[in-house]
Amino acid sequence: MNYREESLKKHAEWKGKIETVCRVPTDSREALSLAYTPGVAEPCMEIHADPKKSFDLTRRWNTVAVITDGTAILGLGDIGPEAGMPVMEGKCALFKAYGGVDAFPICLKTKDPEEIIKTIKIISGSFGGINLEDISAPRCFGIETRLKEELDIPVFHDDQHGTAIVVTAALINSLKLVGKKKEELKVVINGAGAAGISIGKMLLSYGVINITMVDRFGIICEGDESLNEAHAEISRMTNRSFLKGTLADAMKNADVFIGVSAPNCVSQEMVRSMAERAIVFTCANPVPEIQRKDALESGAYIVGTGSSEHPNQINNVLVFPGLFRGALDVRASTINREMMIAAAEGIASCVQENKLSRDFILPHAYDKRAHEIVAESVARAARATGAARK
Amino acid sequence: MNYREESLKKHAEWKGKIETVCRVPTDSREALSLAYTPGVAEPCMEIHADPKKSFDLTRRWNTVAVITDGTAILGLGDIGPEAGMPVMEGKCALFKAYGGVDAFPICLKTKDPEEIIKTIKIISGSFGGINLEDISAPRCFGIETRLKEELDIPVFHDDQHGTAIVVTAALINSLKLVGKKKEELKVVINGAGAAGISIGKMLLSYGVINITMVDRFGIICEGDESLNEAHAEISRMTNRSFLKGTLADAMKNADVFIGVSAPNCVSQEMVRSMAERAIVFTCANPVPEIQRKDALESGAYIVGTGSSEHPNQINNVLVFPGLFRGALDVRASTINREMMIAAAEGIASCVQENKLSRDFILPHAYDKRAHEIVAESVARAARATGAARK
Repeated sequence: MNYREESLKKHAEWKGKIETVCRVPTDSREALSLAYTPGVAEPCMEIHADPKKSFDLTRRWNTVAVITDGTAILGLGDIGPEAGMPVMEGKCALFKAYGGVDAFPICLKTKDPEEIIKTIKIISGSFGGINLEDISAPRCFGIETRLKEELDIPVFHDDQHGTAIVVTAALINSLKLVGKKKEELKVVINGAGAAGISIGKMLLSYGVINITMVDRFGIICEGDESLNEAHAEISRMTNRSFLKGTLADAMKNADVFIGVSAPNCVSQEMVRSMAERAIVFTCANPVPEIQRKDALESGAYIVGTGSSEHPNQINNVLVFPGLFRGALDVRASTINREMMIAAAEGIASCVQENKLSRDFILPHAYDKRAHEIVAESVARAARATGAARK
Repeated sequence: MNYREESLKKHAEWKGKIETVCRVPTDSREALSLAYTPGVAEPCMEIHADPKKSFDLTRRWNTVAVITDGTAILGLGDIGPEAGMPVMEGKCALFKAYGGVDAFPICLKTKDPEEIIKTIKIISGSFGGINLEDISAPRCFGIETRLKEELDIPVFHDDQHGTAIVVTAALINSLKLVGKKKEELKVVINGAGAAGISIGKMLLSYGVINITMVDRFGIICEGDESLNEAHAEISRMTNRSFLKGTLADAMKNADVFIGVSAPNCVSQEMVRSMAERAIVFTCANPVPEIQRKDALESGAYIVGTGSSEHPNQINNVLVFPGLFRGALDVRASTINREMMIAAAEGIASCVQENKLSRDFILPHAYDKRAHEIVAESVARAARATGAARK
């Protein structure tokens, strides 16, 4: 099937992938008096006296805003807010289908980080959580950090952490198959945008010690002119010996390659230079860093890709519905590192040991049980870390 | 029934009066590839090439934002954005139930008009229309005017024009019963907030000539110190002879009294001083300007109130669902005066001549046919005035 052509046809037919519906009776004078005036004054005054009650008396407890500025839509780049809407609507549809979350898409007509932060703060009282989406790096880092500091509801930039969580899940299960320990791994992450930097931080938190971050200029090393603030920070965390070199240099004897970068930037020779039983995740989409069959031919033991056409799709659809479901269920004030790692472990746990194989390291994105396990894991971690408020 | 107590119970049970649902299949790899990646890239690029296509390929064509800053919620005043949510959600529920419109509630955490305007402009690309709600006067006037100028989707402040439209509808049918002509009426409007000023302008457009606007300081007369800009404008439009006086002075020999003001500010004596077959609309809620039975006792021929407990409820629920349905159906760029008058005439036309009586001048708010007629009337007027874009 030509998915893009067929999808355009379907979108014209659907005229919207989500819909707002009415949940209460409205067909009599009494019904109107309860759902609207005059009765509605009473829940209003209850919330006025205690704004937290907005989580009990309105839909806020289950409602997440999916917000973009349209600057990094899929691999399409800066295509503007209206053009980002089909992705945001799709995300909202999946939020409901897999997490039972009421998600509403908002595309912002501004690229200015201060205006984005201000707008989201101003509308935040209507939501139980904020999912940031497809906002370009490095702007996304500062925007998310500020919002996390200034809001008391969960804020989560999916392009950073959704990807990091599912990559971590894929790594957890891969390690079971190759019989290596996380503390002893040499991991190369190629691409230092939103996803790459978050993957680096997540793996450090998870217990991986030896990580080399690479971008198109080579190994990221503090002091390089090309570095932004986020690069400098991650290089301080990963490259304390001020290593320099190319991607090929970095990949020699590496146990794990994680690409969130560009098409065809990895050669078969580079894969051949990796350690035995190498793990290769090529997440660039639609064209990966190296084709799956070429990587396997060059000795990679496990290959994961961003594509649904191959086994082991590394798909962040596995993350966000359950993650927010869990956070909303315990009315979490934030989504912290422990909750993210719990999500990764939850996803990994969905593949039973006897089914786990080189070609089956992750559950399918449409496996509803997987989303439930993510939700339960995240809620438990929120309770354990004090992020839960109920 | 104690509506307020019962309503609070119901709200705690409902936990939200609206819900966002998924309209597309998501249960297989193919379904995901069409609704989300990779297929979704194609509708994105179509909209990128022509942003108007956001009305064809996403839910924008049917989606309205219901936006408040929480400063004038019902008669409760400035109770803050979170506390306004039960009203906004109720409104969204009615938008869907009566107009088939997907409405989403957004409560803004700011009272600064410039911030409100900017925020709404920044999020406007996600919506097909903007319904402003419960924003206090006189701030609401400037906010609506600016947004109408700067956005190319309908912007409508319901507290102003929804009330004005339903009052006009009530007047149209009342005149049939009392046998008076609009050009010969003496009309007194008490209350010069959002609703009162819009009623004055609407009746002038409709063809009423003699209107006296009154507020708590008396007849509004240019030059008075208490006047804001909106007052000065309406007094230039209605009081060119610089009439001064009290409400009692204004009501002498008046054919119509329209109160959108304060409890118990009209005496029986004032009603007695009106012309024969007087029409009295007391919209203050929950306590009216004068009790219905007192007004009738004092000679009023037709009495309408804001309450669902009495005949002739003047309820703007009759307006907004059909008005936006009609505007969205023709992809209107704005909601102009002609569309508003068409809505009023549409509502009035729903009461058949043989059913029209002193106690039945308006259809019930839950009469679905009335909303359909409003939608058809508004769409027709949009086409006739060039506001329609399809």
